[in-house]
Amino acid sequence: MNKKPLILFDPFPRTKEMVFTPDVEKELNNLSYLVTHFGKRAPKRIVEKSLPDVEIIIGQTDMPKERLHRAPKLKAIINVKANWEPNIDYYEAQRRGIYVLSAAPAMAPAVAEVCIGYAIALGRGIIQNYKKFLSGSEKYGIAENKNAYTLFNSSVGFIGFGNLARSLLPLLKPFNCNISVYDPWLSARYLETQGLKAANLNEVLSTNKFLFILTGVTSENESFLNKEKLKLIGNDSSVILVSRAEVVEFDTFIDLAEKNFYRAAVDVFPEEPVPLDSQYRKESNIIYTSHIAGALHSSYKNIRDMMMDDIRQILKNHPPTRLQRAEPRQAELRRDR
Amino acid sequence: MNKKPLILFDPFPRTKEMVFTPDVEKELNNLSYLVTHFGKRAPKRIVEKSLPDVEIIIGQTDMPKERLHRAPKLKAIINVKANWEPNIDYYEAQRRGIYVLSAAPAMAPAVAEVCIGYAIALGRGIIQNYKKFLSGSEKYGIAENKNAYTLFNSSVGFIGFGNLARSLLPLLKPFNCNISVYDPWLSARYLETQGLKAANLNEVLSTNKFLFILTGVTSENESFLNKEKLKLIGNDSSVILVSRAEVVEFDTFIDLAEKNFYRAAVDVFPEEPVPLDSQYRKESNIIYTSHIAGALHSSYKNIRDMMMDDIRQILKNHPPTRLQRAEPRQAELRRDR
Amino acid sequence: MNKKPLILFDPFPRTKEMVFTPDVEKELNNLSYLVTHFGKRAPKRIVEKSLPDVEIIIGQTDMPKERLHRAPKLKAIINVKANWEPNIDYYEAQRRGIYVLSAAPAMAPAVAEVCIGYAIALGRGIIQNYKKFLSGSEKYGIAENKNAYTLFNSSVGFIGFGNLARSLLPLLKPFNCNISVYDPWLSARYLETQGLKAANLNEVLSTNKFLFILTGVTSENESFLNKEKLKLIGNDSSVILVSRAEVVEFDTFIDLAEKNFYRAAVDVFPEEPVPLDSQYRKESNIIYTSHIAGALHSSYKNIRDMMMDDIRQILKNHPPTRLQRAEPRQAELRRDR
Amino acid sequence: MNKKPLILFDPFPRTKEMVFTPDVEKELNNLSYLVTHFGKRAPKRIVEKSLPDVEIIIGQTDMPKERLHRAPKLKAIINVKANWEPNIDYYEAQRRGIYVLSAAPAMAPAVAEVCIGYAIALGRGIIQNYKKFLSGSEKYGIAENKNAYTLFNSSVGFIGFGNLARSLLPLLKPFNCNISVYDPWLSARYLETQGLKAANLNEVLSTNKFLFILTGVTSENESFLNKEKLKLIGNDSSVILVSRAEVVEFDTFIDLAEKNFYRAAVDVFPEEPVPLDSQYRKESNIIYTSHIAGALHSSYKNIRDMMMDDIRQILKNHPPTRLQRAEPRQAELRRDR
Repeated sequence: MNKKPLILFDPFPRTKEMVFTPDVEKELNNLSYLVTHFGKRAPKRIVEKSLPDVEIIIGQTDMPKERLHRAPKLKAIINVKANWEPNIDYYEAQRRGIYVLSAAPAMAPAVAEVCIGYAIALGRGIIQNYKKFLSGSEKYGIAENKNAYTLFNSSVGFIGFGNLARSLLPLLKPFNCNISVYDPWLSARYLETQGLKAANLNEVLSTNKFLFILTGVTSENESFLNKEKLKLIGNDSSVILVSRAEVVEFDTFIDLAEKNFYRAAVDVFPEEPVPLDSQYRKESNIIYTSHIAGALHSSYKNIRDMMMDDIRQILKNHPPTRLQRAEPRQAELRRDR
Repeated sequence: MNKKPLILFDPFPRTKEMVFTPDVEKELNNLSYLVTHFGKRAPKRIVEKSLPDVEIIIGQTDMPKERLHRAPKLKAIINVKANWEPNIDYYEAQRRGIYVLSAAPAMAPAVAEVCIGYAIALGRGIIQNYKKFLSGSEKYGIAENKNAYTLFNSSVGFIGFGNLARSLLPLLKPFNCNISVYDPWLSARYLETQGLKAANLNEVLSTNKFLFILTGVTSENESFLNKEKLKLIGNDSSVILVSRAEVVEFDTFIDLAEKNFYRAAVDVFPEEPVPLDSQYRKESNIIYTSHIAGALHSSYKNIRDMMMDDIRQILKNHPPTRLQRAEPRQAELRRDR
Repeated sequence: MNKKPLILFDPFPRTKEMVFTPDVEKELNNLSYLVTHFGKRAPKRIVEKSLPDVEIIIGQTDMPKERLHRAPKLKAIINVKANWEPNIDYYEAQRRGIYVLSAAPAMAPAVAEVCIGYAIALGRGIIQNYKKFLSGSEKYGIAENKNAYTLFNSSVGFIGFGNLARSLLPLLKPFNCNISVYDPWLSARYLETQGLKAANLNEVLSTNKFLFILTGVTSENESFLNKEKLKLIGNDSSVILVSRAEVVEFDTFIDLAEKNFYRAAVDVFPEEPVPLDSQYRKESNIIYTSHIAGALHSSYKNIRDMMMDDIRQILKNHPPTRLQRAEPRQAELRRDR
Repeated sequence: MNKKPLILFDPFPRTKEMVFTPDVEKELNNLSYLVTHFGKRAPKRIVEKSLPDVEIIIGQTDMPKERLHRAPKLKAIINVKANWEPNIDYYEAQRRGIYVLSAAPAMAPAVAEVCIGYAIALGRGIIQNYKKFLSGSEKYGIAENKNAYTLFNSSVGFIGFGNLARSLLPLLKPFNCNISVYDPWLSARYLETQGLKAANLNEVLSTNKFLFILTGVTSENESFLNKEKLKLIGNDSSVILVSRAEVVEFDTFIDLAEKNFYRAAVDVFPEEPVPLDSQYRKESNIIYTSHIAGALHSSYKNIRDMMMDDIRQILKNHPPTRLQRAEPRQAELRRDR
């Protein structure tokens, strides 16, 4: 007779290497009766067989209301990706007192780091200068820096104040920026307590020298940064797009950057991999990277650390402290590919 | 009869645009009887005529002992560049109670900013990834990030702990790095009070993932980072060279980086402009920029702000608080082109 | 026909002056159909009549499962005191998606402030020195300071890491203390991410120069600091008791402090008001205050600010961000007088 | 033939216990040929005999111009007290390139700590409440706190921005105060770069809820806080006097505090020890302590640490980094008993 709690480990598209390193495997085997499936989503057979006893599900297993009903011992669902998928009934999970948790905070520092890197590269013109150097057309010192500007004491806008923005904030702090935020879910007073200024979308777009697009995509905000909005960005500002390509009208966004309305760094695309013959693949003032912002070895280490810490808490009937909890209404709005 | 103090403003190679903006001109004309010379060093005639009455010299005017003796009212020499030139008798100025001041702290934040930008670009492989993207050979997410690493929780070495390092330190703080420092002028205990670990040169070179070369060149340390030392850097570390090219054996430094012993970002060169046919002008893993780190509009604004603040203090017989004071022994050691 | 949401405002023992200032009254009347009751708990009649329509309850109204069932529109219960009372079915509220919120974070800064004041007064012997001065028996400088000690670089123990400890932490930060924490609800790894060291109770009691008792009382921890535990505190340490008297064997705690095993500051008592003939009312090395730590005008201002901010969020169907959310299991364990 | 540098250690009124602990003695004997004198100032005979060879003087030895001339090897005079005495020719020392150093920064943290303790005790009424508790006249919670106020978000004034203020500043930072400063030696712009607001004396006195008198006494500022100025303090503010009694008209200062124009904490007196029959020795709202603010064991440890660190630097011909350097004009103005 097995008395250990059952844990279902179904982390696809996360791989063993990302979330099931030998230390994790060893500890989970000590703590639990462990059912694992890698390489694709666990088949119905495995999930259904686990439901009567499962206490923790790790991964993005479909968990509609009916399945939640068949999982009477379930204490937590731990999504080891960084987003809320639409395959869970978040309200029902809340009703049943099941923690639904996401590893988004584990990825956010790596994303925040590249945001700083992109912002400095754009403001200071590093890549343009590098290209000039290769071709022998560079100038030196202030002659080269005519259009360069600094993060120090600059105006910064955040679109969205979630995990990414919260990780970016301490990195910006020593630069003494004046930060305004557009986030319709948060009150002006709350933002003020965080040292930030609430602003409407038009203000955030039109008044800042650096603009970080940090919001996820929901069924409500797809392409909300359309041509009309994007044209408000001006003044040779630097725009960093790292969260989700779907929140902007992507072709328009690229087009305006190529026409030098603003400088841009882009890490996410409507279609990944980007087609080989894509029009984006050409020299311009835009810095392109291939969705590298969050997926770092150190991010997966963070995920494993947070996941194991919260699993230990949950198995002791203590509240989890490290991963992010779903807000049902917000989670239901999230859209995912 | 003129009772206003005489100020000699001789800032070459700084230009009017850099240090003599209309607000500066207006205030200095109010405060002083102002003698100015731009475009090259003030000729002997002008300097000699000013000596009997001059109270403040702004610029890099030659001030050997004999001239200091002929300037009985001189209170301060304000070097609006960032280095100590060998054309002042620093000990004699100290004996006479003359403040010798440098604007180095005004340039340091801009340099620190690009240091962070270079470090992130190198560690995260941003430029390599960008090049791959243009050519269609990029991968996505962790597949692209196999060799990427982060500043967060990393080991960092400073070579030199002067103005540049002091400005870089707060920018690194939120990344929670473990920082060790080689600076032969400073005690281990002092560095400890700053939250840093003293280390010898070999340790700093061989044990850190990020290495910032931040020391100026003196008659004693030229090319002290020679081949033997540079070969200690390894482990695919990221090396940022922003202070003075002369402290390294430059060709060796480039050669080792091209051979991927380490990653490198280079903003300073033994000869500037770099000759058009220089071997450095080729695609490699090195990020080159053309001495852009400090010479930003905002840096000149800082210089003007610090300069005017300290001029006001000095004319009231109050100690200056913003610019850096010369340590005679250190200043005498500085070498300049 | 009234379309505004119904809010039941039943804040006793909070008074109008504390939580229903004219600005609050005005805004709530704009936002809602408002039912208020002051001076004692709202009578059954008023509560029952409100249940069918009430969207937010402010106060400590009894809300067992049956009442929750009769309040189909209820979105939030806002306890404007700082504790969880046993008169709410916390699990049922969770099942129904009702936010149960507490104003504890609003009171915590004022408590943290006096904690610092008490710690310095104890360590530095301020009140003893003051008494000596009045009687003419004081010495001066180091002669008086033979047993004085400082918070700087000292060892500090927290018993409990909740709202109070979280507010105390930033105030201690510039003193560079080495802080260890006993909190059975939190993992060692979590505490480490907060810059703290987890320790068992015996370690925390026996190894720190300053000890802050910051835990609330639950049905499980009453008097857990009994004689055996209290005798572990030694070394002339300074002990600050500000959360709840019930967590210590109070008479033993006082007795050991009077016998100089440790220094103590006490703001909470098993019976309040303390009887006039209490044995505590005598000169000793103990600093007594009369439950003044949290109940400051500024604390009530914080409560009103947080309460109104979250009410606005909740009425927009946005998640509250300022007040603390109940963890059902922890809230159920809380005991209150 | 002795080749070690000669150090004259003449630290009176500092004692062996304070500045010449066994570790110091051992290291100094290794580093130098050591001449020591304790218990009173070294007699003329010893000083004069040392002059030809002495490289470092530790203590407050008289060093007028003539003696400086007879000490050709002298590199530094290290005053192990916290003030500048008038028995040194500071300008001549500067002319000769002799570092004149003070241990003031070593004492400042301990003083800053009690400043915070006094401010909280005054604002929160801790000692008054304690007295009421002993006599059975206390109330509880907000009823007792009618006149209590907090440091959080309060207005704070500094009189003087030297070592004490610089140590106090980080301790105040988490309280989010609005700090204005009166210091005639410093520019408004400099204070702004430190996050502070410059103000004239009348503004600082009349507009702040907490007032810290942190300035030393000079020949120019004795009793500058006279009755006319002190009457500007009002509004039941809390005034902390810890630097030097001579900067205020002391009897007036006490009288106004006893009449409740403001609350006061006083650690320094015009005459110490205070006469037994002093009128100050009576119950009032004033907190008196007997010059205990700085003279802590930990302060002497800091002095020894800084002194030894800088001695090592100076003997290597490196600049000292830990102790404070004299500004001749300011040092000459200092007055001492």
